[in-house]
Amino acid sequence: MSLTDFTAWTGWPLGVVGLLLAFGALSYVRRQPAGNEAMNDWAVQIQRGSNAFLRRQSIFLAAFIAVAALLLWPTASLATAGAFALGGATGLAVGWVSMYAATRANVRVAEAARVAGETPALHVAFGGAAVAGLAVSALGLVGLGALYFALIYVQNAYLPEQFARFGEVLAGYALGASSVALFARMGGGIFTKAADVGADLVGKTEAGLPEDDPRNPATVADNVGDCVGDTAGMGVDLLESYVGAIVATVALGAYSAAYANNRVEAVALPLLLAAAGFLASLIALGAVRAIKNTNPALAMRAATLGAAALFLVLAFVTVSLLGLDLEDATGRTYHRFGPFWAICAGVLVAVGIGAATDFYTAARPMRRIAEAARGGPATAILMGLAVGMESTALPLLLIAAATWLANEAAGLYGIGVAAVGMLATVAVSITLNAFAAISDTAGGIARLSHLGSDTRGITQRLKAAGSAAAAGGKGIAIGAAALTSLALFSAYASAVRLESIDLIHPFVLLGLLIGGGVPFFVAALTLAGVGRTAAILSAEARRQLAETPGLMDGSVQPDSGRLVDMATHASLRETIAPFALAILIPVAVGAALGTEALGGVLVGATVAGILLALFMTNAGAAWDSARKWIEAQPETTPGSDIHNASVLGDTVGDPMKDAAGPALNILVKLMAVIALVLAPWFLSLRGQEVTPLPQPVQEESMAAPGGDVPRG
Amino acid sequence: MSLTDFTAWTGWPLGVVGLLLAFGALSYVRRQPAGNEAMNDWAVQIQRGSNAFLRRQSIFLAAFIAVAALLLWPTASLATAGAFALGGATGLAVGWVSMYAATRANVRVAEAARVAGETPALHVAFGGAAVAGLAVSALGLVGLGALYFALIYVQNAYLPEQFARFGEVLAGYALGASSVALFARMGGGIFTKAADVGADLVGKTEAGLPEDDPRNPATVADNVGDCVGDTAGMGVDLLESYVGAIVATVALGAYSAAYANNRVEAVALPLLLAAAGFLASLIALGAVRAIKNTNPALAMRAATLGAAALFLVLAFVTVSLLGLDLEDATGRTYHRFGPFWAICAGVLVAVGIGAATDFYTAARPMRRIAEAARGGPATAILMGLAVGMESTALPLLLIAAATWLANEAAGLYGIGVAAVGMLATVAVSITLNAFAAISDTAGGIARLSHLGSDTRGITQRLKAAGSAAAAGGKGIAIGAAALTSLALFSAYASAVRLESIDLIHPFVLLGLLIGGGVPFFVAALTLAGVGRTAAILSAEARRQLAETPGLMDGSVQPDSGRLVDMATHASLRETIAPFALAILIPVAVGAALGTEALGGVLVGATVAGILLALFMTNAGAAWDSARKWIEAQPETTPGSDIHNASVLGDTVGDPMKDAAGPALNILVKLMAVIALVLAPWFLSLRGQEVTPLPQPVQEESMAAPGGDVPRG
Repeated sequence: MSLTDFTAWTGWPLGVVGLLLAFGALSYVRRQPAGNEAMNDWAVQIQRGSNAFLRRQSIFLAAFIAVAALLLWPTASLATAGAFALGGATGLAVGWVSMYAATRANVRVAEAARVAGETPALHVAFGGAAVAGLAVSALGLVGLGALYFALIYVQNAYLPEQFARFGEVLAGYALGASSVALFARMGGGIFTKAADVGADLVGKTEAGLPEDDPRNPATVADNVGDCVGDTAGMGVDLLESYVGAIVATVALGAYSAAYANNRVEAVALPLLLAAAGFLASLIALGAVRAIKNTNPALAMRAATLGAAALFLVLAFVTVSLLGLDLEDATGRTYHRFGPFWAICAGVLVAVGIGAATDFYTAARPMRRIAEAARGGPATAILMGLAVGMESTALPLLLIAAATWLANEAAGLYGIGVAAVGMLATVAVSITLNAFAAISDTAGGIARLSHLGSDTRGITQRLKAAGSAAAAGGKGIAIGAAALTSLALFSAYASAVRLESIDLIHPFVLLGLLIGGGVPFFVAALTLAGVGRTAAILSAEARRQLAETPGLMDGSVQPDSGRLVDMATHASLRETIAPFALAILIPVAVGAALGTEALGGVLVGATVAGILLALFMTNAGAAWDSARKWIEAQPETTPGSDIHNASVLGDTVGDPMKDAAGPALNILVKLMAVIALVLAPWFLSLRGQEVTPLPQPVQEESMAAPGGDVPRG
Repeated sequence: MSLTDFTAWTGWPLGVVGLLLAFGALSYVRRQPAGNEAMNDWAVQIQRGSNAFLRRQSIFLAAFIAVAALLLWPTASLATAGAFALGGATGLAVGWVSMYAATRANVRVAEAARVAGETPALHVAFGGAAVAGLAVSALGLVGLGALYFALIYVQNAYLPEQFARFGEVLAGYALGASSVALFARMGGGIFTKAADVGADLVGKTEAGLPEDDPRNPATVADNVGDCVGDTAGMGVDLLESYVGAIVATVALGAYSAAYANNRVEAVALPLLLAAAGFLASLIALGAVRAIKNTNPALAMRAATLGAAALFLVLAFVTVSLLGLDLEDATGRTYHRFGPFWAICAGVLVAVGIGAATDFYTAARPMRRIAEAARGGPATAILMGLAVGMESTALPLLLIAAATWLANEAAGLYGIGVAAVGMLATVAVSITLNAFAAISDTAGGIARLSHLGSDTRGITQRLKAAGSAAAAGGKGIAIGAAALTSLALFSAYASAVRLESIDLIHPFVLLGLLIGGGVPFFVAALTLAGVGRTAAILSAEARRQLAETPGLMDGSVQPDSGRLVDMATHASLRETIAPFALAILIPVAVGAALGTEALGGVLVGATVAGILLALFMTNAGAAWDSARKWIEAQPETTPGSDIHNASVLGDTVGDPMKDAAGPALNILVKLMAVIALVLAPWFLSLRGQEVTPLPQPVQEESMAAPGGDVPRG
């Protein structure tokens, strides 16, 4: 069995197995009792709201995908356009499956906690979470594996010289997934944060209602937001990272002259690594389910480590069996285990970024914010901004170290492989994150339905255990986004046959300036969108509270559906401008200023995007834990000046860390993927024939005429 | 008379004339009556405090300059080390002169307002401000002119092939000025904002005292801060911009192969333009002084426009007399009026940036913040952050447009010339800014000395007129900083003989990541420094108010000197880390990772630094005007929720716009200048001989061996 045959028969079948397991987990969840009438009533309201939001989002995105696919057909190819549509469909499917699993599991978790206790509730929550975790990576594997299969057996592209097609077609798939992800993450983020702010402002501050009070008209919207933002948005986000890293590496292998001697292996490796990571995740998740009587937090943390360890073993075996002899255009060779060392560098750096993030958001720097809150709200805000900005340095240096190490180990290709290594066991990370999110909304339903404090204590503990276990994966999203962007940029440079992108060239400097501005502008639109949507929601909630007699004494239910509807409309409207901008800037610069300037745009966007994302997510997380730290001090009285200052920091930080920051991680990759997909079109605009790819390096071809041997 | 002779005899003599005029203005100010005993008492306290701060800062900087000059001697040359010391001394002198003029003029303005009315007060304030304005550009002209003179007549470097020395030596001068500027701007900024926050927090919020109340122990420190931060800091800042732009252009002319045919002219032009701009400024300022009976705001605005128009005429004459035939390494030629078109592009873009800044900070986007303040402090903060981020886009596009136009008109050299053009009439801008600052502290003395509301009304009106007139120059600082950084970066690339800086090379990407992180880290340290220093000051002010009997009824004076002393210590201590970082990063990267990676650092720092500086200064200005707008609404009651939210935004924005933001503009240039000065050392570290500069382009030399013909 040849390597291509093996790869073609590994990816999608393993993905199908994963989907079957996810379906099994979903059936298990659905068989659980769904609680009493009140619980069911609230759960159905949340389900309906989530459905309505996703339906409207999907309609817009389906239309966008159809139009964009029609535009891609002539500019790229029919196969690329088809792969794009498939990628978009995968993204939508991930959103729906995650949302469905979360909204069905949460009420059942609450019911299990009410009648059966903590362990049964844990199992239900874990089952629902596993649906999301398995579905995301399985759908990615099925999609990419099916494309690989089709290229080998339908299009007969099995010769190394035809492997450029893998780069082109798979990049189309990534573009579909990234487009859906950016839209879902921004729209969902604006929805959930606006509902959160609106509910808190009117309910807690103005009407004096507790969190998740059924009398607050914005409570259902708040819970819908948690489902569509935290669960569905996060699932699509990680699908995008996963697919992006794999595709960037495939494209580097397919395009770059450096790997001409190993094209078949270089294209197969990322898919095989993804399959190995998925296998390792399945085993680790199965083990958690099998261990019944242990500390759930411990079991989940063990799953992360176990999956990673198992993956590293499988990766070592895969790399050594493949036996790559990487040699780049300058004649530099790499050790045959180079890709494995790159993976190790990536995994180590992800752990390091997680630790650095923890330090800034939970240790001494966080306490500096708490100290500053003594001086009032202004110093609390300023110190949070300062901590957020300061916290960019360590992760940035770690990302730089990973880039350097991976490049030393296996060239630019190594940078992509390192990102794939970080994300290979993403099924476990998603499961843990979804576990926390499901437990959170289960707690919401418990409060809405006035369940006892025992029940709410259980959901609270489950949420804390899930959050703690998921925290270990914090560094992955950021590190992988940075490495994937750099790998996509390198693949783009190979794809448009740029030997070098010269910083001294004014157009490249122009590109860098423009690219650097995009993340700032998109973050601004996202933050302002949250503010505007929150203003709409709080006005409506205020109106209902004032105009509906019987609402405050609980005899009349608020019109929650109207708020969900308004939040859906407003958040999607706010998403369209930044989304369009992210797509149009690379297209416009590439067409008007040329491929070298577009290279500058991609690098400028990556550098500014990573910095801004780190700043915003860490500042938000640090304010959040500073508030919790202050609340945990025995001398703190709720409503005191210091407590109010810390709450303000938390409120400011929330949209930064949950809406704008994560959107930037997707944004930089989306821009790079667009450039990669449109590479042939940019070349044809300039009247440049798409030259055939460089062939396996032989002695005489080392001195090939300039222009088609990227420096790699 | 040859061009070199003419240039050598133009710069410093014109500067000396300027210094004599400044001395004359100062004598005029000192001859005015200095007010009653109470006023004099406060004025002397402020003078003493300002002296103490500048003395301590100067001692530190003198030691730094001595050590750094000793290190520069072997790594660069004795001449460069000497020029560096001269540049540093110039920076210190500018700080002292500006502070001296401001602290002597303010009390005399208050006295003139008290006894003689608005017009006499205007003349005193204008006289004091002109001292600062004239001194800054005159000292810069004297320094740069003297170095040109010495190189021509002492070192006999009058042949085109020796002109690389001009780049090296003048870069040393710029390095001295930039080092002092960064330190003064950051230290002064931390001092003034910490004193401001401390005085407001304890005085206004806790003790219920009005602004500038003599019973508040932090009031004197607050006024000292205005003198050392707003006047001295701003003067040194603009000296740095002025010198940086001239030196970047001289270095491009001296190093770049593109101008080998016109080296003498290319090196002379920026100095001649600076002289022309100074002449235009002298005439315009003289005209304002001559016009006695008109609206002062109108006269000052006319001075800005008049100086600019006169300068453009002189620049046109200079450029056409010089008759440059620019031709770059690729054989591309430029029109002989190219540098003039570059200047026009620069001036237009500066106007455009000013208008864009005005739009975001004073028009619709600012009112979005005021609207958001209705929703409470969190939405006011979020909307301000969003407006700040959004406001980066237009200036960035304008900077990109200026870069492109200037490059089209005269190559990379044109980018430098455009920056020189923006800053040539800086004497007028400084005068207007200093006018506003002096009127402001005159108002402070009036309030401290319980002068009547008539007097305070006059100082208030003068301040408003000065601020309005100075606002037209807002865009200059940002636009010129960006263009100067890009020009310095290009000069650096020529100086280290880099043919290209390849973005696809992993080390360049590393450099970009590291460079992008520096502005975030430095901004973080500056903001945190303000917070920490403010905490120290408010604790001491609180202690004095609590422990000193008789303070609150005015029978005992507070120990203001102690607070000034503590602010001085704390702010200088907070400045050292970011200052050291800014200097060490380029040195370390250049030595460890090489000159190409350092190029990446410079570009990364420029892009991230400009974006962050725009974000912070515009967010701060927008919050500031949102507060004023809310206060101007008839329905606003002081202390209402919406008013408090807008005050909070203003307080958060103050250190962003006055301490951290301006420091970043200096930071990016300082890093580039260090790289330029150390270029020979970096080359020698790699064992590369410093190759002779490319000679005038003749037919056969067009095919010169690679490595020494920058692509320009």
